[in-house]
Amino acid sequence: MSRVFNFSAGPAVLPEPVLRQAAEEMLDWHGSGMSVMEMSHRGKEFMAIHAATEADLRQLLAIPPNYKVLFMQGGAIAENAIVPMNMLRGRASIDFIDTGEWSKKSIKEAGRYAKVNIAASAEATGYDRVPARADWQLDPGAAYVHICSNETIGGVEYHATPEVGAVPLVADMSSDILSRPVDVARYGLIYAGAQKNIGPAGLTIVIVREDLLGQALPATPSAFDYKTVADNDSMYNTPPTYAIYIAGLVFKWLKAEGGLAALAERNRTKAALLYEHLDASAFYSNPVQRDCRSLMNVPFKLRDEALDAAFLKGADARGLLQLKGHRSVGGMRASIYNAMPVDGVRTLVAYMKEFEAAHG
Amino acid sequence: MSRVFNFSAGPAVLPEPVLRQAAEEMLDWHGSGMSVMEMSHRGKEFMAIHAATEADLRQLLAIPPNYKVLFMQGGAIAENAIVPMNMLRGRASIDFIDTGEWSKKSIKEAGRYAKVNIAASAEATGYDRVPARADWQLDPGAAYVHICSNETIGGVEYHATPEVGAVPLVADMSSDILSRPVDVARYGLIYAGAQKNIGPAGLTIVIVREDLLGQALPATPSAFDYKTVADNDSMYNTPPTYAIYIAGLVFKWLKAEGGLAALAERNRTKAALLYEHLDASAFYSNPVQRDCRSLMNVPFKLRDEALDAAFLKGADARGLLQLKGHRSVGGMRASIYNAMPVDGVRTLVAYMKEFEAAHG
Repeated sequence: MSRVFNFSAGPAVLPEPVLRQAAEEMLDWHGSGMSVMEMSHRGKEFMAIHAATEADLRQLLAIPPNYKVLFMQGGAIAENAIVPMNMLRGRASIDFIDTGEWSKKSIKEAGRYAKVNIAASAEATGYDRVPARADWQLDPGAAYVHICSNETIGGVEYHATPEVGAVPLVADMSSDILSRPVDVARYGLIYAGAQKNIGPAGLTIVIVREDLLGQALPATPSAFDYKTVADNDSMYNTPPTYAIYIAGLVFKWLKAEGGLAALAERNRTKAALLYEHLDASAFYSNPVQRDCRSLMNVPFKLRDEALDAAFLKGADARGLLQLKGHRSVGGMRASIYNAMPVDGVRTLVAYMKEFEAAHG
Repeated sequence: MSRVFNFSAGPAVLPEPVLRQAAEEMLDWHGSGMSVMEMSHRGKEFMAIHAATEADLRQLLAIPPNYKVLFMQGGAIAENAIVPMNMLRGRASIDFIDTGEWSKKSIKEAGRYAKVNIAASAEATGYDRVPARADWQLDPGAAYVHICSNETIGGVEYHATPEVGAVPLVADMSSDILSRPVDVARYGLIYAGAQKNIGPAGLTIVIVREDLLGQALPATPSAFDYKTVADNDSMYNTPPTYAIYIAGLVFKWLKAEGGLAALAERNRTKAALLYEHLDASAFYSNPVQRDCRSLMNVPFKLRDEALDAAFLKGADARGLLQLKGHRSVGGMRASIYNAMPVDGVRTLVAYMKEFEAAHG
């Protein structure tokens, strides 16, 4: 088969030029005679890759100098423990905003290390929105306020950074990091598994304000103590070198595409194509309130779920893959991260129209 | 430059056929239209890769059915915490055999979770050997006995599995796993970072007897609780999919090369070429006792360390890379893992002779 349009929620589509370059450089990176996979992480070749990857990420997100960038492992699920282990700083409780499945995972795991306070939840309305900021019951003594900036399963996204005062704001940005500009200075910590908008699974990026470091719980494994990781430039343990290299190629691609402002514009275009069709049709539906809809993950249902299998089969035949919704919600989901071309979304919408005409 | 001979201690040389296949499949794995990096870890394509990788590893090491194979993240340094968090099982102390730098790292990290007992140490003789089994002061009440089967820095390796009775034997096999057959049933747990003999950095393999699972400390992050990982077939968090794929290709290469008995024979040949030359020359030396010398990492010194820079420069010019010894011990180190061809070692020995003739 030729290249498909891959709507997987993650691991997910990567830019084709990145994959082509990785293939070309597989046996001999820049005349080194080695694959990046074979390089000592402390050799000059990989050190250069590592430094450029961090510098490009800093430039793309305009990360202030008082923030550390950490390349870690274990994904957001590991970070759900590692963040409280590092960020309690002597406080007893954490404020959470509950917007769906990924919020709930974070809440459950953090509860093993601290008292968790659900400062606001959208559960009562079926997780169809971000709870209105005016309704958040924040505790000024909390260690931090935790949000999930984009719910990969529910398709709910914050369209602006919430104001939470002096308490550090911590965001799981796994599925919308680098999809738009973000004012990093308004966060105490941002974390993201790489496998949606950054690169291969197995790399986790943590961006953290340096004054918050150095107070990890005694039980924190050294490899996951942010201060230790920061002091060793993410080389306290051997970093996931090849994943960092691919992330670096993705960052260079993002810069070549015009940076995050240009990507945000393209992402708005892609999402609008899908949501406009969902709203115009009585055959398809999306349950999320318009001002909280995700630009990255678009869940939708067919009017008759008995048609789901036929829809997926026809999609597969057209090279539109991984459209099945998460097992917890059913229906369909189109994940349209940075690397999904506008053409992929146009092709999907055309297929949706065709399918509706045949079965509507 | 054409392909070099890369003597890096890790990340390290990979088999060239593996890299060629990875390059060829980068944009389209087996007609899927996707790179392995882009595949959902729960999709049928990656599930097949994952299952084949585990099955091949089980076959290569003849892993008994009552052992779980876990694909994790964080490397051996993270496991130095994760192992005691999971394996104390209500016991208070751990027995350690101290054979050098990597033993010491394990001991220091475990000390944060349990009482550590140095049951034997080679420190007094400059870490030139594995302490004689008769001198080990084992505690029958210990949670487990921990060894480092091969000290990557010091070049000291166990040439046989020690008998420790009923207490589970735990081994950090990061730098010699898959270099020879091992009787897995004699171990409670084996762990290994992938970046020496398995594949890319960012993957950790844990092989654990299943009756030892289920008693992790309460502070253990769920993503690192062996029982949770085992119950979810290493998919509780998103696994490092591409690293697993490369490891799978390496396992297929090992099988095609004749399996671990054939590899062990080749590894003995390679190591003998080097050690015989070191012993025959007064210009070069290796400090390790003969029956404990590593077949994977061969540290050596030049008679006059003022010649080190010239030796390394000449080696680089001949495409013999990464021969500089670890900063803690100085001198040289040739890491000659499975993927280092016999030719690489022959070329190194020829260069050593040439250099000695010019400078001896």
